[in-house]
Amino acid sequence: MLPSCSPIRRRLLSHPLRALTYSYHHVLPISQSRFNSSATPKSPPQVIFSGIQPTGIPHLGNYLGALQNWVKLQNSSPPGTKLLYSIVDLHAITVPQNPEQLRRWKRESLATLLAVGLDERKAVLFFQSDVQAHSELMWILSCTASMGYLSRMTQWKSKLALEEGASPLDESSKAKLKLGLFSYPVLQAADILVHRATHVPVGEDQSQHLEFARECVTNFNHTYGGEHLVAPQTLLSPAKRIMSLTDPSSKMSKSATNPSSRILITDSPSTIKRKLASALTDSSNSVSYSPSSRPGVTNLLHLLSAFDSTGKSAEELGMELERSGMGLGAFKSLVAEAVSEGLKGVRERFERVMGDEGYLEGVAERGAVRARESAGETMKIVRKAVGL
Amino acid sequence: MLPSCSPIRRRLLSHPLRALTYSYHHVLPISQSRFNSSATPKSPPQVIFSGIQPTGIPHLGNYLGALQNWVKLQNSSPPGTKLLYSIVDLHAITVPQNPEQLRRWKRESLATLLAVGLDERKAVLFFQSDVQAHSELMWILSCTASMGYLSRMTQWKSKLALEEGASPLDESSKAKLKLGLFSYPVLQAADILVHRATHVPVGEDQSQHLEFARECVTNFNHTYGGEHLVAPQTLLSPAKRIMSLTDPSSKMSKSATNPSSRILITDSPSTIKRKLASALTDSSNSVSYSPSSRPGVTNLLHLLSAFDSTGKSAEELGMELERSGMGLGAFKSLVAEAVSEGLKGVRERFERVMGDEGYLEGVAERGAVRARESAGETMKIVRKAVGL
Repeated sequence: MLPSCSPIRRRLLSHPLRALTYSYHHVLPISQSRFNSSATPKSPPQVIFSGIQPTGIPHLGNYLGALQNWVKLQNSSPPGTKLLYSIVDLHAITVPQNPEQLRRWKRESLATLLAVGLDERKAVLFFQSDVQAHSELMWILSCTASMGYLSRMTQWKSKLALEEGASPLDESSKAKLKLGLFSYPVLQAADILVHRATHVPVGEDQSQHLEFARECVTNFNHTYGGEHLVAPQTLLSPAKRIMSLTDPSSKMSKSATNPSSRILITDSPSTIKRKLASALTDSSNSVSYSPSSRPGVTNLLHLLSAFDSTGKSAEELGMELERSGMGLGAFKSLVAEAVSEGLKGVRERFERVMGDEGYLEGVAERGAVRARESAGETMKIVRKAVGL
Repeated sequence: MLPSCSPIRRRLLSHPLRALTYSYHHVLPISQSRFNSSATPKSPPQVIFSGIQPTGIPHLGNYLGALQNWVKLQNSSPPGTKLLYSIVDLHAITVPQNPEQLRRWKRESLATLLAVGLDERKAVLFFQSDVQAHSELMWILSCTASMGYLSRMTQWKSKLALEEGASPLDESSKAKLKLGLFSYPVLQAADILVHRATHVPVGEDQSQHLEFARECVTNFNHTYGGEHLVAPQTLLSPAKRIMSLTDPSSKMSKSATNPSSRILITDSPSTIKRKLASALTDSSNSVSYSPSSRPGVTNLLHLLSAFDSTGKSAEELGMELERSGMGLGAFKSLVAEAVSEGLKGVRERFERVMGDEGYLEGVAERGAVRARESAGETMKIVRKAVGL
């Protein structure tokens, strides 16, 4: 254990959730974004859109990869910024789903958004399938979207476990490939464009899709002569790849068989402690940062850094703890405490809203109304441009 | 000219529009349809859906191929039958459109439906793009629709003037093919399935699309375990191929350069007479039925037969007129009179409703409300099945 006076420990213990949501240093704040260089005081207000698939209660990989950033954007965006966060349930069905489970996951996902600190008074929280304009715009964009471009995109290949060079009509693809899995980048583009989003926070693995959304804007505006749709800019968050606790060579994943490989954001402090205690590290009983030779320890350093309110990097923390001569047992406890502190209150809020079906439904309904209004404004412009 | 006492002439002159709409003998009435053999008195009421693209004022090819049949179905269906006729504007944009023209064509198409005798009290008349559930269901069906099946369908190939064997990702296809043109059979399936249509009147060239809609039902019901969607049956109308007046080897077409090649259903009797007088026939000054050796005369016999209230076939009329020794000039006048009689009142009604913007908007709005209600019922079932 760290001595109780350790500076890291003091920092961590004075680290309530509210502070966390304001202390996220790993993504450029919008005002500093390199994509924002052309913004002037006269620019129209920013519109930020992002979506998350309803896959149930998120683990730390999801949380640190996206949700924490959403909260940060909510709390740090300039006044007038419009934020829309969508649970993209229409995307979930490109692969087979159990309907009962999907319904539960949808509820859990909405409860999660609220539990991590998103606030319906500050951001529009809604289910994609409650806003039909997403599908409608998708169809309209389909009419100017190139089959060739789509066939070069990679995600349908990885979901079907096909090679990079696979074509949608190879014998091996044809048998399995459904139109939805092939065409969903167009729906994703519609998700963004239907709200006239100016900025989309994405990880690096999604930048191909943002590029495609911009391509859709170019195709549409060119075909219908005018600046009808808005090309979104990327708010790139440095991909924080949180790895599995039991196999640090793979990403932390919902689908891994061993539940101890991941920490859910609603895990209790004792569960977090137990999972971290059993995390796979190595035989050297010390702390140091080395992605190649010590992937397990390095992954825990990334976790510690993600929940560190002073913004120290995993490397810095590694050097600090190496100098302090901390052993692995104490280190794991330290990480467990930091994670528990960082997630403090999330589980309670999650349980509370999950137990209040009426409240959840109200949030969804109010979000749907506002999202429909937002989408409706764009659809008026689109319908006029197309001649519908 | 025929002597004024000719039985054909008497028949034709006693042939008001109302009679026409009840006297269509070329399509099996639903109650006699071979697709209806399993219907019992306990069967749920039939739902008939059909769509027409907004390509402006229809010519006789469109009218005899579809609209006349729609009116017939409206006026002869058993009580309780639900009829939905849609102007499928979302399909029009799979190829580039001029927005102003598309808007005008939409208005003209709705006015046409009313002018030919469709009645909003008996059938739901609506614009497809007013009912977002069409696009929404399309997306959902996409997730279980096979890319392989779609790539074997033919219309995208013919619209791009590609060979039958072309693949969507051949070099020659890729450059031009848009996703919308490739995937529209799924939207077409959604159009039908979202209203739980039991019967769809189509020409033979569309039977491939109905087959695909049934395939979509099978895929969806199989994936989500249950009889959620209804497989539509084909109400096949014998393809009445009306040919160009100036080139009887091609179909009468809106896109042909020479306007005298087609008769619009709003043409005045004098225009109809002029166009028929200049119709290309051949050098033999007599009437006889022979598709191969006398395509022009045979085409006019088909027109005459289509507007003949006694239901005589083109062959029968050909023999009758051959025996009477009628010359081509008189024959063309006879056809012109029959067509004018058959279309009597259409032009006046068309002008009247086109001049009453408020009325047209009211029809569209009332149709949209009813179609949304109809689609909404299916979407409840679909969303429940999928888990949305």
